[in-house]
Amino acid sequence: MISLIDVYHVVTATVPLYVTMFLAYICVKWWKLFTPDQCVGINKFVANFSVPLLSFQVISSNNIYKMSLKLIYADCVQKFLAFFVLIVIIKMSDRGGLKWIITGLSLSTLPNTLILGIPLMKAMYKDESDILLPQIIFLQSMIWYNFLLFLHELDAAIPARTMPASSSTSSQGTGESETSLEVQSKEDEGEERGETRSQRKMRILIILMKVGKKLIMNPNTYATFIGLIWASIHFRWGVDMPDVVKQSITILSSGGLGMATFSLGLFMASNSSIIACGPRMTMVAMGLKFLVGPALMAVASIVIGLRDTMLKVAIVQLYPKELFLLFLQESIMSNQQF
Amino acid sequence: MISLIDVYHVVTATVPLYVTMFLAYICVKWWKLFTPDQCVGINKFVANFSVPLLSFQVISSNNIYKMSLKLIYADCVQKFLAFFVLIVIIKMSDRGGLKWIITGLSLSTLPNTLILGIPLMKAMYKDESDILLPQIIFLQSMIWYNFLLFLHELDAAIPARTMPASSSTSSQGTGESETSLEVQSKEDEGEERGETRSQRKMRILIILMKVGKKLIMNPNTYATFIGLIWASIHFRWGVDMPDVVKQSITILSSGGLGMATFSLGLFMASNSSIIACGPRMTMVAMGLKFLVGPALMAVASIVIGLRDTMLKVAIVQLYPKELFLLFLQESIMSNQQF
Repeated sequence: MISLIDVYHVVTATVPLYVTMFLAYICVKWWKLFTPDQCVGINKFVANFSVPLLSFQVISSNNIYKMSLKLIYADCVQKFLAFFVLIVIIKMSDRGGLKWIITGLSLSTLPNTLILGIPLMKAMYKDESDILLPQIIFLQSMIWYNFLLFLHELDAAIPARTMPASSSTSSQGTGESETSLEVQSKEDEGEERGETRSQRKMRILIILMKVGKKLIMNPNTYATFIGLIWASIHFRWGVDMPDVVKQSITILSSGGLGMATFSLGLFMASNSSIIACGPRMTMVAMGLKFLVGPALMAVASIVIGLRDTMLKVAIVQLYPKELFLLFLQESIMSNQQF
Repeated sequence: MISLIDVYHVVTATVPLYVTMFLAYICVKWWKLFTPDQCVGINKFVANFSVPLLSFQVISSNNIYKMSLKLIYADCVQKFLAFFVLIVIIKMSDRGGLKWIITGLSLSTLPNTLILGIPLMKAMYKDESDILLPQIIFLQSMIWYNFLLFLHELDAAIPARTMPASSSTSSQGTGESETSLEVQSKEDEGEERGETRSQRKMRILIILMKVGKKLIMNPNTYATFIGLIWASIHFRWGVDMPDVVKQSITILSSGGLGMATFSLGLFMASNSSIIACGPRMTMVAMGLKFLVGPALMAVASIVIGLRDTMLKVAIVQLYPKELFLLFLQESIMSNQQF
């Protein structure tokens, strides 16, 4: 299935990303080149310019009138399967909560397609990836990140009432002993019998407003939507962007991949240890990332009827093949929530 | 001579640079997105990675075994002409000094080929520029910047003894009323009659060591030399760089142009006014930049016998066609001296 030349292409495409990350890491850890505030400056640049412009470029190159419905279905089915599996696990183990669902979903179903996926898939599937990749990134940017952001805000809204229970562990970020969603919702049930319907509506409205505010503050939202609008104009009427505009975007987005990985290296260096969540949680996370996620995608793809390259692309995009990925994930989420 | 399509190409190539610069400018001035220290972080990244890697790429692509001797001669002749003209002007006007010579030389003879020249010349001269540009950048990086750095250190070593005279104006950076080189050298003459030869040698040695130290601290020096070594290996034995190494360099250098211009925008925003040196000095600087420099290059080129495209490239590379260039110059020099 995979030839030596494929392996060579993949190595050529991914090693430079790790070189860049490592460079950023030693810049901070060994050479003390950047102070923490200077790192923030670079990360801000990446979050506000590199990543949004890269998103725009990919999304605006996606022909929304010719998207593969099967890929969309498979993508959605995989997410719902993952959601379902996570709920079952949480019910069975009798712990966890919304934080677990968020982390689980993002680990098992949201690959770092924008950063690691692009070079990897281009190396492996050449032309076909040019058609399929934008579609996957499109779905991720338009639907799943926003959905996760919503869950995240929902989670942030709930602990405000159960703070004493979770404050001791929240700094670890693992959410291991956090009040479970189930327990939470039972408590809510008891309390809310006295509440009126309008009060509940009010709470949902506040959460939605918070999510909306976060989205409005996020340059990536604009990049995504403008990309979508432009794609719908470009592929409907065949209008091309003026060269000046195109070049103005390219001049900053062309370095986006390098800047984003560099920024991830800075992020890693700012953590006291590379594996921040402990070995046991790392094993669980890697299991979700490299086994559960791809397995679910395979099931979903076969159910929907994805075949050949499309099936491979759908699965391989979930395999950025290494450990640092946990951090990529975290960092993208934090960029996303910038 | 220049068609409308040429103008269009030039506009397409240069406008994005100003868009990027302007973006950086309003990020700091209007949006207050970056604090001064965060700007330093981005500038450090540019000085340590973007510019050196860009230099490396250009210099290592220059076939040193097939350089145009005429271009090299013309380049040297232009520099000596400029030096001569500046000395004459300073003698006639009876003021100025080493600072004037440095500023004059860098304005009239050192274009920002690396940042502005590349897109401009590629737009105008397509394939031919690919051969000539690396040669021009090669000469600039290997000889002229180092020579200017030496003059700069020499200048820094001298005012230590005439500090009271120049301290009042040195903060403006124009050096308008600075003790002239001539007066200075006459003073030195008087004093040095009592000094022994070994003391003079000592001073020169100290200055050389200072320059050497600056060069050793500058990542661009390494990039330039490694680029030179690689070019001499590559073009002699036809050895190619492994793809992994090439891609590792490209991933960071590809955004170099955008990052460097962004960094210039940040630099501009950090000055209280865009034109820092006052309208009169700006006129003088622009005269040096857009009239004296190109005129000298034209004379030198014609004397040496450069013809056609080569003549045009030699002259056009001195014309980055606008006002902001004064700042580009300053910023590159400050990166150079990082």
